[in-house]
Amino acid sequence: MPSDPFFHPVSGFDLPRFAGVPTFMRLPQVTPDHPRFAEVEIGLVGVPWDSGTTNRPGPRHGPRQLRDASTMIRAQHATTGMRPFEAAHCADLGDVGPNPADIADTMTRITAFYDGLVAKGIRPLTAGGDHLTSLPVLRALAKPGPLGMIHFDSHTDLFKSYFGGTLYTHGTPFRRAVEEGFLDPKRVIQIGIRGTMYDTEDRDFAGANGIRIVTIEELFERGIPEVMQEAREVVGTRPCYVSYDIDFVDPAFAPGTGTPEVGGPNSFQALQVCRELAGLDIVGADLVEVSPPFDASGGTAFLGVSVMFELLCAMLAQ
Amino acid sequence: MPSDPFFHPVSGFDLPRFAGVPTFMRLPQVTPDHPRFAEVEIGLVGVPWDSGTTNRPGPRHGPRQLRDASTMIRAQHATTGMRPFEAAHCADLGDVGPNPADIADTMTRITAFYDGLVAKGIRPLTAGGDHLTSLPVLRALAKPGPLGMIHFDSHTDLFKSYFGGTLYTHGTPFRRAVEEGFLDPKRVIQIGIRGTMYDTEDRDFAGANGIRIVTIEELFERGIPEVMQEAREVVGTRPCYVSYDIDFVDPAFAPGTGTPEVGGPNSFQALQVCRELAGLDIVGADLVEVSPPFDASGGTAFLGVSVMFELLCAMLAQ
Amino acid sequence: MPSDPFFHPVSGFDLPRFAGVPTFMRLPQVTPDHPRFAEVEIGLVGVPWDSGTTNRPGPRHGPRQLRDASTMIRAQHATTGMRPFEAAHCADLGDVGPNPADIADTMTRITAFYDGLVAKGIRPLTAGGDHLTSLPVLRALAKPGPLGMIHFDSHTDLFKSYFGGTLYTHGTPFRRAVEEGFLDPKRVIQIGIRGTMYDTEDRDFAGANGIRIVTIEELFERGIPEVMQEAREVVGTRPCYVSYDIDFVDPAFAPGTGTPEVGGPNSFQALQVCRELAGLDIVGADLVEVSPPFDASGGTAFLGVSVMFELLCAMLAQ
Amino acid sequence: MPSDPFFHPVSGFDLPRFAGVPTFMRLPQVTPDHPRFAEVEIGLVGVPWDSGTTNRPGPRHGPRQLRDASTMIRAQHATTGMRPFEAAHCADLGDVGPNPADIADTMTRITAFYDGLVAKGIRPLTAGGDHLTSLPVLRALAKPGPLGMIHFDSHTDLFKSYFGGTLYTHGTPFRRAVEEGFLDPKRVIQIGIRGTMYDTEDRDFAGANGIRIVTIEELFERGIPEVMQEAREVVGTRPCYVSYDIDFVDPAFAPGTGTPEVGGPNSFQALQVCRELAGLDIVGADLVEVSPPFDASGGTAFLGVSVMFELLCAMLAQ
Amino acid sequence: MPSDPFFHPVSGFDLPRFAGVPTFMRLPQVTPDHPRFAEVEIGLVGVPWDSGTTNRPGPRHGPRQLRDASTMIRAQHATTGMRPFEAAHCADLGDVGPNPADIADTMTRITAFYDGLVAKGIRPLTAGGDHLTSLPVLRALAKPGPLGMIHFDSHTDLFKSYFGGTLYTHGTPFRRAVEEGFLDPKRVIQIGIRGTMYDTEDRDFAGANGIRIVTIEELFERGIPEVMQEAREVVGTRPCYVSYDIDFVDPAFAPGTGTPEVGGPNSFQALQVCRELAGLDIVGADLVEVSPPFDASGGTAFLGVSVMFELLCAMLAQ
Amino acid sequence: MPSDPFFHPVSGFDLPRFAGVPTFMRLPQVTPDHPRFAEVEIGLVGVPWDSGTTNRPGPRHGPRQLRDASTMIRAQHATTGMRPFEAAHCADLGDVGPNPADIADTMTRITAFYDGLVAKGIRPLTAGGDHLTSLPVLRALAKPGPLGMIHFDSHTDLFKSYFGGTLYTHGTPFRRAVEEGFLDPKRVIQIGIRGTMYDTEDRDFAGANGIRIVTIEELFERGIPEVMQEAREVVGTRPCYVSYDIDFVDPAFAPGTGTPEVGGPNSFQALQVCRELAGLDIVGADLVEVSPPFDASGGTAFLGVSVMFELLCAMLAQ
Repeated sequence: MPSDPFFHPVSGFDLPRFAGVPTFMRLPQVTPDHPRFAEVEIGLVGVPWDSGTTNRPGPRHGPRQLRDASTMIRAQHATTGMRPFEAAHCADLGDVGPNPADIADTMTRITAFYDGLVAKGIRPLTAGGDHLTSLPVLRALAKPGPLGMIHFDSHTDLFKSYFGGTLYTHGTPFRRAVEEGFLDPKRVIQIGIRGTMYDTEDRDFAGANGIRIVTIEELFERGIPEVMQEAREVVGTRPCYVSYDIDFVDPAFAPGTGTPEVGGPNSFQALQVCRELAGLDIVGADLVEVSPPFDASGGTAFLGVSVMFELLCAMLAQ
Repeated sequence: MPSDPFFHPVSGFDLPRFAGVPTFMRLPQVTPDHPRFAEVEIGLVGVPWDSGTTNRPGPRHGPRQLRDASTMIRAQHATTGMRPFEAAHCADLGDVGPNPADIADTMTRITAFYDGLVAKGIRPLTAGGDHLTSLPVLRALAKPGPLGMIHFDSHTDLFKSYFGGTLYTHGTPFRRAVEEGFLDPKRVIQIGIRGTMYDTEDRDFAGANGIRIVTIEELFERGIPEVMQEAREVVGTRPCYVSYDIDFVDPAFAPGTGTPEVGGPNSFQALQVCRELAGLDIVGADLVEVSPPFDASGGTAFLGVSVMFELLCAMLAQ
Repeated sequence: MPSDPFFHPVSGFDLPRFAGVPTFMRLPQVTPDHPRFAEVEIGLVGVPWDSGTTNRPGPRHGPRQLRDASTMIRAQHATTGMRPFEAAHCADLGDVGPNPADIADTMTRITAFYDGLVAKGIRPLTAGGDHLTSLPVLRALAKPGPLGMIHFDSHTDLFKSYFGGTLYTHGTPFRRAVEEGFLDPKRVIQIGIRGTMYDTEDRDFAGANGIRIVTIEELFERGIPEVMQEAREVVGTRPCYVSYDIDFVDPAFAPGTGTPEVGGPNSFQALQVCRELAGLDIVGADLVEVSPPFDASGGTAFLGVSVMFELLCAMLAQ
Repeated sequence: MPSDPFFHPVSGFDLPRFAGVPTFMRLPQVTPDHPRFAEVEIGLVGVPWDSGTTNRPGPRHGPRQLRDASTMIRAQHATTGMRPFEAAHCADLGDVGPNPADIADTMTRITAFYDGLVAKGIRPLTAGGDHLTSLPVLRALAKPGPLGMIHFDSHTDLFKSYFGGTLYTHGTPFRRAVEEGFLDPKRVIQIGIRGTMYDTEDRDFAGANGIRIVTIEELFERGIPEVMQEAREVVGTRPCYVSYDIDFVDPAFAPGTGTPEVGGPNSFQALQVCRELAGLDIVGADLVEVSPPFDASGGTAFLGVSVMFELLCAMLAQ
Repeated sequence: MPSDPFFHPVSGFDLPRFAGVPTFMRLPQVTPDHPRFAEVEIGLVGVPWDSGTTNRPGPRHGPRQLRDASTMIRAQHATTGMRPFEAAHCADLGDVGPNPADIADTMTRITAFYDGLVAKGIRPLTAGGDHLTSLPVLRALAKPGPLGMIHFDSHTDLFKSYFGGTLYTHGTPFRRAVEEGFLDPKRVIQIGIRGTMYDTEDRDFAGANGIRIVTIEELFERGIPEVMQEAREVVGTRPCYVSYDIDFVDPAFAPGTGTPEVGGPNSFQALQVCRELAGLDIVGADLVEVSPPFDASGGTAFLGVSVMFELLCAMLAQ
Repeated sequence: MPSDPFFHPVSGFDLPRFAGVPTFMRLPQVTPDHPRFAEVEIGLVGVPWDSGTTNRPGPRHGPRQLRDASTMIRAQHATTGMRPFEAAHCADLGDVGPNPADIADTMTRITAFYDGLVAKGIRPLTAGGDHLTSLPVLRALAKPGPLGMIHFDSHTDLFKSYFGGTLYTHGTPFRRAVEEGFLDPKRVIQIGIRGTMYDTEDRDFAGANGIRIVTIEELFERGIPEVMQEAREVVGTRPCYVSYDIDFVDPAFAPGTGTPEVGGPNSFQALQVCRELAGLDIVGADLVEVSPPFDASGGTAFLGVSVMFELLCAMLAQ
């Protein structure tokens, strides 16, 4: 076990899982002013923010519930045997403080925080927040050049605007990211798309720009291994981002979200897609749209942190 | 877009989904006294009634919760591209007013309401209510002659009587409908039947009269496409009815119902069966047994209206 | 019974309360484009908006849940015998469509809607929405000159700004309204104030401007009749506004709100204070901060509409 | 301790309260076919029935939830020191089996069951069920002559009919009981009446027949001791019945009911009124309208059984 | 129908399912002091105990909720046609009274109770309780010699100790049972194992002792029929025990448990595995870890009793 | 503002209350190994433990939910103006790690932790945990000599034993503390006692030893000021402990607890009693029995931390 014990999570064998101040996966909290901040390799960050939500709000409460549920996560991956907390220095970097009444101000704050991570070489694993969160994160991570992206979701989030011209909502982040040059649309794949549609404006944009959309029907027909192999080819060996909207999963498994769409993957498939990410050059990942008011039981959050653990392992797999 | 804007639903791009008085799918409310009533082609009707329920009541609250959840439905079908509200004049016809303390009176009221729809050539898509609702609806729709029926459910609802001779409960409607000549049993197929059984009295009746029962085991073994092909053959090209009990779906996906049976289809399959109905001569359809007290989250209702949207598209598909 | 039957609510003796599309108090829906709009005297308006919420969001869902619960309200006041729906033409005017991702745009929309009511002589009874809602409403109603206000709340909502300078939140509306000249601070009284405090900045502003604050301790010690008599004297005979934040009430009675404070009035007292408003010149009233995600049972909403019925009667009492 | 150990409840000191098949107050179950049935003095009876409910159903599940909660009740009254299970032979007599789809049949079944109790000299303490339950019970208990009644409720339940002539609902039982001669209206008092009103038809009937109505305002102004003293005088020393609708209590304390009315007594007052019944000639009592679907937490049921314990002690007090 | 009517459950056709004191599957309650105790062949026993729970408690409330839900179970198996209550004398034997504050005392009580069953030749079907329950049960059932076991779970429960040496928790029962000689590890198979891991200490023990572990990945890849065929071979024709932890099932289907692991079987599969047990020499079975506080809806309990019905049929199948 | 900014809580004006890792009242976390531990004056400590619970478990989850809710607490007391975090160095000391499967081991751990606080002169404000928690705390705090105690509760917790001789449960801590010499019974007062009783064994012990019991009836009749004046006299000027069981409060205000008793104080009174403690020599205080599984809404926890804030102010008042 080569890694530093400071960065090891507390074990449920030593302290019961329900005890202690809950940090992500029981890791040490290492905020930017902490003396060991620069040693962090993977930083788990909360972005408690949902001002981009057009329908049912709540993801601002996501990071706290995810931290709570994450005390159920243990140290070793069941199928690969990976022990991520020994493979790299992982830490809970705390939350980015949002301004819930000012979208532009909050986006500036988020990008600044992630600029700070990039400066230290810390790869972020973000817990949202609604999906607009991904935009200011990408603005920091993609400064060196446009990223590829594997995007799990039931929605494309590629719309131009809402409510007569509003550009920044949780339905538009990736349209903006493409327009702003932070995503390379030809290296973007969206998986699990489904649900009734307003119209085809988002899909037309995808088609015109080379974004690959895999509907849920295609995912189920071709199977996860084949689709994920294609996903790996789409992003290739260059740097990519992974964005995971919890509403990718069927609402029976993840009811705690604002815009559910029935007919989605089950929880086994929810994890399985992550396991196919190993070996990619992932510069950052996020898990967004967990909305505690719509699942006080915490079941959605537990699935969310189980996905985060898979993403963490994927980020560290050789 | 040939259809009349009056009959278009409100878009979530214009008015957020949580705003506005909730009608079915944000359609105009056109009660029988409305000047444009006669122009309606497909009428969405609520029947808030559960007096036939032998176990856990609640479906009387179904239409209201379904209307609420239905504001999440958008205008276009994801896989076929159909835009049903442009394909036909659809409207929310309001609720049939029941007498919760008098079963016979309520059945008379329901049949009278649907007689009025038939007189205007309006095809009904009904939101129940418990499954006894289907009987007075069939009494109106089948006046020209017995109908075929595709019936999704975990129960046959073919029992003779309950509690020592009570004939009208949610466990008996189709026995009555066959006896009264409104259903042609040889053109009836019941899909998804499962759960512990009292005895075989209902299945014996089915067998003796030619009703086809597809158990959940058969459905899963043969697969939905093959079973639904058989279903299409059973009802043939003549007029038929579609009755969809939400307890057809597994209770993890649809907990809000009074008589759940574990081991059922998931939500993807719940939609998939509807998509195989396209092209049949559907004179009416219903979605029943959504019971809000057993799912305050509204998840069951959202699945219910997703099924209703599929049924609507099936009724309009060429 | 002199009033027009068109404006009468549906009776639960005729149609069960759970049936029908839910409008406020089962009144007719009369949106501004309705031919009888100009005949409305009291308009019940929903403002489904919570972008000013600094803590737990949800009031955007308030109007819908309040409409649902309001079908439990009957036609006659229990103690005064008033039958408000016969005393004046009341109607549900629908919702003001907000832009959930743009605070300034939404405030403009709200003020424009209420300008339209003022133009027709319709007095509004508003269902929020968070408390920032009151500001754009006052901007319309107080155009003729600053209003007095009786304000029931556990918070003063008089802060200068949040998060380093953000001026428009649900903690600042009445500071803005005083600054903008829509409220006459010397004719403003705030009743029920309690809870831990950030500091005294809000109370200092109140003191410096002549706003009267009645803490919960004072309310309980002096009693409701005496305090409300003072309230009547504070606003006097000139036009006033009544703003009722549901968190005025103890959270055991009204858990469905975002910033509860324990130690408040019970539900009897919640109604009692309204009954002391009769005879004032109330140009408008609101009930805000009902947050359905925090009370799916609807109990808070039922208390909310019970308060709205009291406010309605107070607005009509001679 | 003179009483028979067979009739003693199980103690929580011996078997934890959560263990064991739950009977009322952990008493022995003694159905009519039990050899010791004739020895019972006070019989606790469940009537799981809600077919008379005009709004939100659920009380059919009341007896089971009440039994569950009643395992929290201990053996001794806190203020009087009475140990009721030693003062008389008490037993759980099981449930009267209703026919949920036939009101008339069920009323016949209930009256027959209670006729059997009367024949054995067993005084019943009933757990409903909705308030229509009281009518068939009174038909049995009042066969010797009309009874007086102390009635705690927020509604009079004195209406003539619903839905155009339906006579048997939970809003009409005492109108029927007076008409049928089972209640002596001049010896009936109704306490706690409140809430918005349809009209005054029920109160006019009360006034015309001499039924005493104590509104919640009067109850709070005069105080419980004075009002209950009047109640004792109204029923006098002759046989009387006590009917306790859980919606007498404020919905913050008893949310699990179908027709709540805000502004009611708290739980201390809920018990206090019962304590003033000691010494009356109570031939039977009921606690009705507990509706588990509206309070899955069981808090309402726990208050309900706490009231039942008080009623039991009142029935046994000298 | 050769069996004794005394041992038949009450039918929902006669008494609605929500009525009556709830025993397991509406069977007669036959405690050890009952005159017909010795005639029981299969005894359903509750063990309301969770003192071995290291994380979220609650299973002590399991037996009561399972009894409540079990009134939904009918008399006949849907696919095999078996009518278990006619095939053998089944009864509810009540609960073993635990001492919630003393683990050793409770284990002694449980073993003593099951010794009594063994003495009468009654085969137990146990409703837990947490998984530590299985240990004192095995101590009674395996007195003649070590048993084989088919174990459905997401965890192995084979750990050596917790919290620095604590030997008796719900994570250790089968380690103890092997060590104490009550299980023959070479005849033990564990199916469904998944979730993040502390380390490999449990699996190392399994490997060293010959316990067969089937992970969820293997179960899904090979399929239930093939895996269950192997399971039958592992236990062979000699006596075996079946232990079913409800957390074997995916938490979307069974949220009411203390240590859920996502990515598990659905409810159809949950039943299917039981159906492959027919013909084995099952000396006892249990269903454990249903935790009502984490699923007040009762859905988990209903799945639990559906599994119990399958286990019962398996115990009786020839 | 003389105090050190390190010990100041985060303000909701700077960071929204829903953001950040939740410590008690947003104070710094200062565990015993922290360099500034010795500077702490008041330490907030969690004891997540409920192994002494004889009925419904859950308080082991209390500290986490209390921390979450405590982010709603602001810096200043509303009526006294006290700013406790400026008056003394306050910190979150983390949780004492319990052994949930070993009562004796856990009590040893707790006492050892509090011995460490005493050694540093840190006064503890404890968040339980069930009421047995108070015993090992008293064993540390009362080492210099027996303490007086003001005890708010609906139960005396003075029983000798449960389940045939079990000495350590949440119903026995103060019996043990008196027997062991850590409480001076003549300086102990118990306030709010109510609910049905097993017998009088606890009250007999109180009477024989001089413990003063104030029933809820006495509390309401004499009023809080008079009773609290007596309480102050009972404990006098010497060191005392304050123990506050959340079930002191009526379950409508605090449903999240394991042994509720109806008929208790409201939330205003819940705070009011604490305000009368100012000036006593309080060496420690606790708030126990908050059980999150029975109130997922967090309302009980919010009341709990509001009480903790009052206790904190009382501990610091001159």
